[in-house]
Amino acid sequence: MTMRKSLDRLINALVGLPGIGRKTAQRIALYLLRSRDDVARELVQAVTEAHERLRACPRCFSLTEDELCDVCSDTGRDHSLTCVVEEPGDVLTLEQSGRYRGTYHVLGGVLSPVDNVGPDDLHIRELLERIAKGDIAEVIIATNPTTEGEATAVYVGRQLKDAGVTVTRIARGLPVGSDLELADTETISRAFEGRKEL
Amino acid sequence: MTMRKSLDRLINALVGLPGIGRKTAQRIALYLLRSRDDVARELVQAVTEAHERLRACPRCFSLTEDELCDVCSDTGRDHSLTCVVEEPGDVLTLEQSGRYRGTYHVLGGVLSPVDNVGPDDLHIRELLERIAKGDIAEVIIATNPTTEGEATAVYVGRQLKDAGVTVTRIARGLPVGSDLELADTETISRAFEGRKEL
Repeated sequence: MTMRKSLDRLINALVGLPGIGRKTAQRIALYLLRSRDDVARELVQAVTEAHERLRACPRCFSLTEDELCDVCSDTGRDHSLTCVVEEPGDVLTLEQSGRYRGTYHVLGGVLSPVDNVGPDDLHIRELLERIAKGDIAEVIIATNPTTEGEATAVYVGRQLKDAGVTVTRIARGLPVGSDLELADTETISRAFEGRKEL
Repeated sequence: MTMRKSLDRLINALVGLPGIGRKTAQRIALYLLRSRDDVARELVQAVTEAHERLRACPRCFSLTEDELCDVCSDTGRDHSLTCVVEEPGDVLTLEQSGRYRGTYHVLGGVLSPVDNVGPDDLHIRELLERIAKGDIAEVIIATNPTTEGEATAVYVGRQLKDAGVTVTRIARGLPVGSDLELADTETISRAFEGRKEL
């Protein structure tokens, strides 16, 4: 297949993107080649533009094209409340639910001894600095319910012990719309622990 | 979310690629932004290069960067045998199996009254022209085992009736490694029809 090396190159560039295996990469590559020029051109321009324009918000480390991100610069949000998440993608997910009105603080990852990620690699110091300015009353820790996410939540919680703010952790339990039968032991155990009076 | 419009643009460019929904598009977009510059740059260059260089082989309508595709120009292949498929992607799939040594003929789609695709929209005339040159002895029709694929196979078969070549259809039956329990009625019915003496 030496004569189609630009196709192989395209497939290889697509394989390895999250959620894309070789079969899907092949389908996408052929789709891009089959489509009118503007589909491939729009993809190229969108990747280039996003890469050039987006950077970390200096306050919360979410993504922004401007000085501050749209949440940090929104005076209509509750700035006394901040939600600590792992990645900018978590901000998007939580914003899509439309139920949270506070601000965010993106750690930029989780503590992971295996991957050599320690506290200094996360934006924990910047969180303490934000709190020291006195505007924040409650910190909700919303790292993922994974081993590393839980360990990071515990660590961040300890760092905030003497910071004079309320520190909470989002609830773990049965996902709404799911089936008890499908839940794993740990989720069921968390659901019992977190039970509330009706 | 007006301040992240380049992120929205990137996500929208990714949604709609085959196999990519909004969640996956979001994960890919954030991955591209988080990665070192060269991941996004390689993707951009690969899409651009593939778009510029690849075109249809004038003989079989598979993809090529050269005058003829690598199969058509390979004198080691059996040019008396040609396999009719729907799309260039089918050529890749069949080549990956490594079991077929003949040439191909890409129709460029299937007959579909719903999508207004008729015989003149497919490379059927070019197939007849190739056969008229006298090199081809057998045409294996390998359109997909879908309603449109079967209808197209029947149509192409009829067109070739007086062309003086053997026309065959690839076997339909139980996929190897699969379970009888998982097979649908039509597949089982085809598997019985296509049974062979042991």
